[in-house]
Amino acid sequence: MSLNVKSERDLPTAAPPLSVHPVPGLPEVQPGDDLAGLIAQAAGSHGLALQDDDVVVVAQKIVSKAEDARVWLDTVTPSSFARQWAERWERDPRLVELVLRESRRIVRMDRGIIIAETHHGFICANAGIDLSNTGSDAVAILLPKDPDRSARLLREGLHVHTHQNLAVIISDTFGRPWRRGLIQVAVGVSGLTPVIDLRGLPDADGRTLQATELAVADQLADAAGLVCGKADRMPVAVVRNYAGPRGDGRAAELVRSPEDDLFR
Amino acid sequence: MSLNVKSERDLPTAAPPLSVHPVPGLPEVQPGDDLAGLIAQAAGSHGLALQDDDVVVVAQKIVSKAEDARVWLDTVTPSSFARQWAERWERDPRLVELVLRESRRIVRMDRGIIIAETHHGFICANAGIDLSNTGSDAVAILLPKDPDRSARLLREGLHVHTHQNLAVIISDTFGRPWRRGLIQVAVGVSGLTPVIDLRGLPDADGRTLQATELAVADQLADAAGLVCGKADRMPVAVVRNYAGPRGDGRAAELVRSPEDDLFR
Repeated sequence: MSLNVKSERDLPTAAPPLSVHPVPGLPEVQPGDDLAGLIAQAAGSHGLALQDDDVVVVAQKIVSKAEDARVWLDTVTPSSFARQWAERWERDPRLVELVLRESRRIVRMDRGIIIAETHHGFICANAGIDLSNTGSDAVAILLPKDPDRSARLLREGLHVHTHQNLAVIISDTFGRPWRRGLIQVAVGVSGLTPVIDLRGLPDADGRTLQATELAVADQLADAAGLVCGKADRMPVAVVRNYAGPRGDGRAAELVRSPEDDLFR
Repeated sequence: MSLNVKSERDLPTAAPPLSVHPVPGLPEVQPGDDLAGLIAQAAGSHGLALQDDDVVVVAQKIVSKAEDARVWLDTVTPSSFARQWAERWERDPRLVELVLRESRRIVRMDRGIIIAETHHGFICANAGIDLSNTGSDAVAILLPKDPDRSARLLREGLHVHTHQNLAVIISDTFGRPWRRGLIQVAVGVSGLTPVIDLRGLPDADGRTLQATELAVADQLADAAGLVCGKADRMPVAVVRNYAGPRGDGRAAELVRSPEDDLFR
């Protein structure tokens, strides 16, 4: 067994490196825009013709904008609970109200910050709501209602525009316990397997791996984040030469059931 | 402001894409090995001459092996607490004992799994201990005692061998709450800033970003993980064209203080 492993290690990889390409030149996305068309065009006009098996990673915010998942804060009437909490922590009561509406459970609520479990099952600050002043007044941008569906539609749209079989990840920027700094996670997936199960494969020492699942969709989102940054200037990146399995995965698979989660 | 943003968006990026290169051909690492030399040689002999500003991501396990952070389970005498818990869940009591020794706090202990806070402050399953049967008997491989120091020494060693100014990340595979699947995290860092603070920068809508820190070292570890997998066949990868700041960062900065952590 160890001989086998050694000989595999000594093989040079002929495969090209994984590469992560920012897609510049995307216009400000508007409600109703054909986002797939805009992405295909921006990529093509910057010398990045999309290819079979490319993974297109798209920031949640522009997907939400294209789907018009926006709420003008002026239209929101805060509950008394939202009002008193917002007052205590000097927050906008209308935003607090919206966060509560987008949540099925509050995980933590302290020092002006709300960690919420969204209706999708994601756990993140402010239920994933971004504030934006696209025009005159403050506008809240919600997570897409069904980000896996958004990813699938985007993938189908990209196929129409490029005739290539791509995978799509819709990414968002989340905090996490115990470690500083935000990372990227996949909130929507289409065309790839988001969690790879390595159980039963031998490791380098010949031991059989047990219960080793890799969240590759989150890792792909993180890789894309390295060229995108948080300042939203570059909401799309393409990961090329990712060798992992494709298929019918959904980001919903990344949500861990409480009874299965010793970390929580 | 929006005009500025628009014109910046329309600029094509001249920068080459970020690329992630697996480094094949590394031999089985032995205690006392010059790991920097092995990495430089393996990279060079596979056409990947290391360059200034490359980020070399190295799996914790081979760093620990080179540093001989191993414990033969036969040398471990379990406490009665370790024994009774191991018996209940059909675990190896010597491994349970080792996990307790490597921990400063147990976060959760259930169903045969121990989520521990290591002496470094990392929170992970089994205090980061891997089991391995490198030879005859079972051997536990601990995390390096001071992974930031390990990263620094590796970086200095790589400079001796390559005459290039590199950054080094020592990565490990961690679980997390709420989401399925393991991801990569940085447990040791040298030569780059692990957490980037974007506070004060305008976002694409011209709003000033607040309290936005990105854990880029973890994102780099995740990007490397995409070409390495978990089966340890490829414990080193090189990330090229990462544009983020270098400097004197340490992975210890990624550990969040409890009073600062609303997620926990």
